[in-house]
Amino acid sequence: MNIEVCYTPQAYHLFHKDEAIVVVIDVFRATSAMVTAFYNGVSKMIPVATVEEAREYQKNGYMAAAERNGEMIEGFELGNSPFGYMNNKVKGKIIAISTTNGTQAIEASRKASKIVIGSFLNQDVLCEFLEAQKKDVILVCAGWKNKFNLEDTLFAGAVTEYLTSRSGFSTSCDSAIASQHLYNLAKHDLYAFLSNSSHRNRLAKLDLERDIRYCLTANQCPVIPVMEGKYLVKM
Amino acid sequence: MNIEVCYTPQAYHLFHKDEAIVVVIDVFRATSAMVTAFYNGVSKMIPVATVEEAREYQKNGYMAAAERNGEMIEGFELGNSPFGYMNNKVKGKIIAISTTNGTQAIEASRKASKIVIGSFLNQDVLCEFLEAQKKDVILVCAGWKNKFNLEDTLFAGAVTEYLTSRSGFSTSCDSAIASQHLYNLAKHDLYAFLSNSSHRNRLAKLDLERDIRYCLTANQCPVIPVMEGKYLVKM
Repeated sequence: MNIEVCYTPQAYHLFHKDEAIVVVIDVFRATSAMVTAFYNGVSKMIPVATVEEAREYQKNGYMAAAERNGEMIEGFELGNSPFGYMNNKVKGKIIAISTTNGTQAIEASRKASKIVIGSFLNQDVLCEFLEAQKKDVILVCAGWKNKFNLEDTLFAGAVTEYLTSRSGFSTSCDSAIASQHLYNLAKHDLYAFLSNSSHRNRLAKLDLERDIRYCLTANQCPVIPVMEGKYLVKM
Repeated sequence: MNIEVCYTPQAYHLFHKDEAIVVVIDVFRATSAMVTAFYNGVSKMIPVATVEEAREYQKNGYMAAAERNGEMIEGFELGNSPFGYMNNKVKGKIIAISTTNGTQAIEASRKASKIVIGSFLNQDVLCEFLEAQKKDVILVCAGWKNKFNLEDTLFAGAVTEYLTSRSGFSTSCDSAIASQHLYNLAKHDLYAFLSNSSHRNRLAKLDLERDIRYCLTANQCPVIPVMEGKYLVKM
């Protein structure tokens, strides 16, 4: 089984394989928020590309979340801060969500036969699931507006590191190899490694240090969200 | 002055800045061949996107080089092996050239105010030139068919490492930071570091080990090719 890493949503078409499992990764913060949401009892999520679509769902009585450039959009109850989803009010709810990068990455990989959601928060259960499937894996980093970003790459590297150490998995994909090297450099202190990264600084300016630390702490939410039709549900 | 690294030609539009200097990098082997060509007395080169264009120049009496997927195309006198350009027959000549990735990266960055050619072979003179210009730098990796590749990233990291240690240069670009980390991991033995990279293996299958070793040996050709209109010329 082969592992590949796609660094930006716009490049997904270069990687697509009908039978591969796609893992969508947006560490700061969409996929961290999704994993947190399901861990806290959200019933379903509906990832949408545009804020207008999220607003449409809201008009129709759904809870809705929308974020652009790190900030919650006015008129919505939720953004992409995981802490917004640690709340009884989300329990059992269906939530439409649109974010700057994460939901765009889901949109870009719609053709995949299976899309699951990855973040450091569900690292071990996700890795064990992928190992058990015995299928090719494409790790799709949400990046930042179609540019490469470090934090998603580090998580892609963590998964690559795990799987390539298991029998049957290997990679000859340069971006997977690079991600693995970077993860091994960073793993003893992800927070320090990312200290001068672009998005970490973007969030720090918005005073989101608590979110950053939370999103980098492994295995706090052992659940795997998976796309089923237009819905994300808990596997 | 800011340094940014663009990992694939198709992403160049996300990085373009009118005043920045673009360095096009295709270590295996287009930009290594170009640097070698000028060092060996080639007068001008004409990088073109398609093989047909190269053939057109050939019909009009020019020398012409064309490579796809690592192999010289039938009917051409040259491909992208640097060793093809270590030859008296190229001295003083104008050579049209089309390659799988390198000339595509030049094509993608045509809007740049200045495009220079980088490779390990001209590493020091290139770095010193960039330092002296005191302008923003965009390092454009040719990659492999719009996917990230390791060898171009390592050279981008070498330039980032040099410039960020000089006063006035810095970066907050995640791909530049990642490239720098990877270069520092690899620099003591680039050849060994790239042992399982995709393109190195692609070339090894074509029995091009000699090319690989040559392209990874720094400072063998201290010249800087620069675009002037449709021509590459020696600076």
